[in-house]
Amino acid sequence: MSHAGSKRRKLDKPAEDKLYFESYADVSIHEEMIADSVRTDTYRKAIFNNQSEIEGKVVLDVGAGTGVLSVFCAQAGARKVYAVEASSIADQAEKIIKQNKVDMIVEVIKGALEEVDLPEKVDVIVSEWMGYALLHESMLNSVISARDRWLKPGGLMLPDKAELFIAPVNDLVVEERLGFWSTVKTQYGVDMSCMTDFARKCITASSEIIIKPVTVEDVLSHPVKFAELDLNAVGVEHLSSVRGRFRCLCFGSAAFNAFCVFFSVTFPGSRHPLVLSTSPFKPETHWKQAVLYLDHAVEVMQDTLVEGDVNMYPSQEGSRHICIHVDYTVGRRKGNRRPSLFLMDLRR
Amino acid sequence: MSHAGSKRRKLDKPAEDKLYFESYADVSIHEEMIADSVRTDTYRKAIFNNQSEIEGKVVLDVGAGTGVLSVFCAQAGARKVYAVEASSIADQAEKIIKQNKVDMIVEVIKGALEEVDLPEKVDVIVSEWMGYALLHESMLNSVISARDRWLKPGGLMLPDKAELFIAPVNDLVVEERLGFWSTVKTQYGVDMSCMTDFARKCITASSEIIIKPVTVEDVLSHPVKFAELDLNAVGVEHLSSVRGRFRCLCFGSAAFNAFCVFFSVTFPGSRHPLVLSTSPFKPETHWKQAVLYLDHAVEVMQDTLVEGDVNMYPSQEGSRHICIHVDYTVGRRKGNRRPSLFLMDLRR
Repeated sequence: MSHAGSKRRKLDKPAEDKLYFESYADVSIHEEMIADSVRTDTYRKAIFNNQSEIEGKVVLDVGAGTGVLSVFCAQAGARKVYAVEASSIADQAEKIIKQNKVDMIVEVIKGALEEVDLPEKVDVIVSEWMGYALLHESMLNSVISARDRWLKPGGLMLPDKAELFIAPVNDLVVEERLGFWSTVKTQYGVDMSCMTDFARKCITASSEIIIKPVTVEDVLSHPVKFAELDLNAVGVEHLSSVRGRFRCLCFGSAAFNAFCVFFSVTFPGSRHPLVLSTSPFKPETHWKQAVLYLDHAVEVMQDTLVEGDVNMYPSQEGSRHICIHVDYTVGRRKGNRRPSLFLMDLRR
Repeated sequence: MSHAGSKRRKLDKPAEDKLYFESYADVSIHEEMIADSVRTDTYRKAIFNNQSEIEGKVVLDVGAGTGVLSVFCAQAGARKVYAVEASSIADQAEKIIKQNKVDMIVEVIKGALEEVDLPEKVDVIVSEWMGYALLHESMLNSVISARDRWLKPGGLMLPDKAELFIAPVNDLVVEERLGFWSTVKTQYGVDMSCMTDFARKCITASSEIIIKPVTVEDVLSHPVKFAELDLNAVGVEHLSSVRGRFRCLCFGSAAFNAFCVFFSVTFPGSRHPLVLSTSPFKPETHWKQAVLYLDHAVEVMQDTLVEGDVNMYPSQEGSRHICIHVDYTVGRRKGNRRPSLFLMDLRR
């Protein structure tokens, strides 16, 4: 969308980051995931918590990436680990596995999970398959397929449960950014306050989910779980629509202008199950939270009820993209607000 | 490039920014430009410095955007300002112009400069046409076309000169990021130091220019001007190759691992010409600097000579994208280093 005589000063996204990370893309994806210590430490703990189930056993790592989980499993005593990875990072995984002297145990298999053949069934499947908002570009399909094809009956899934949560929020950053336009007159003597409406429309008319860290103070109620996936049982057919109801009671007076959606996954364990949470109330992960703006802010008070239905389903345009559809009402009395409806599409 | 069973956790760029700004794109481009006070203040000063040339005269604003420069010109006493803008931001410019009560003077014309018809020739052309590395997605073609079609003989160009500079730099951020992989063993017990080579290759094998702010301390010599465009005279045909030689003497011992390229534009003035500089030695602008990584770092000392040729030319794939080609030698003796050659393409 370049017009002669129009300006594309800013590229589609901030040029600094875009160009920086596009160059780095191959490596920075993995740098970010490894550097996310909530993620990597929880997987490490989960694997060692289940050491008795892994020792002497066969493990399949679905979407192994740099192979870090496979190395953990080898360190935990696995007899054999199949590290399946479709992208070219598999070559780096092989080097890392050699460098850590577990190449007799870990076998890197370069290919799509659906297309590879393993020489045997496995006792354990480990996978870090979660995408933004859990299901965006997730590899859950592949994990399910791996489970159905390769996991022995009664085998161990790591993790074995995924849960989705929603909460109303008041996003102050948006309000602050909108305030910019009213400052221009003081700075340059040109009144640009009329840009505020346009700017607000650019945000609220957007049909895109924003991935960013939500500040705890901006969350307006206890988050509510609206869906749960049992990874021992869920089928691919269930992923065409992951939905549920929610009822949130607001903490106090605030301008409710967005929902945030996030997830957790749980690992089985002999003592306590271990939870990897991406809640705004927990330490930040690289998944941050998914934010869906309302088309207008709604004033809420203590105990104002925000309720509705969420439906998450694959986008038409690309089945690995996720749409989140929220139907909601605000207020104790029905009809106080007409149900608004919006569709958010998390694009690449 | 999505594979089943591979991970695209990170989108093509950091999802936070990408998704955030894609939603905001229409407004955030303009927010960034207006908020860049080096840019906006310098244009404002340049316009008021030339008030005697603008008062009672006709001005053409090429790529007017939100119309801020047009309002400045009206405030400086222009009789008429034609604000030509091809994108839909023209609608906002109209509102801003009304809000500032200059709608009797400023006329917004929505369309590509090359296609619009003005009712008269103009005395002054003002345009903020500069892209990253000056020429990336710049509107200079349109400005030249506007000058040739609409500017009266002897009319005023604001700005009237553009200069391009180059300097060798030592980019420490890259080295720091590469260091991450050696820290993984301590953190998680998995040795990933072998990823450093891969990570370095991801950077140096890249054929892309990185837009980011260069730290003053990282600049290894006085920047050298390698090209100059006289905007009163330059023709579209000159833009197919903007080139020049450079000779830099290094300040002291350092690892030279990149070039940075930046520009300035100059406004005529009765007293001093006014310079809008994007040098790393000046306050940061939204243009930052363009960084081109070498395929390997070269140790330099005080007075080490870095010299060569730069050639900037439009990319084949999209004529508004710029390539920068640098042919260089390092060291006093010829043949000390074989000339390396690299091609950088600043993509959207």
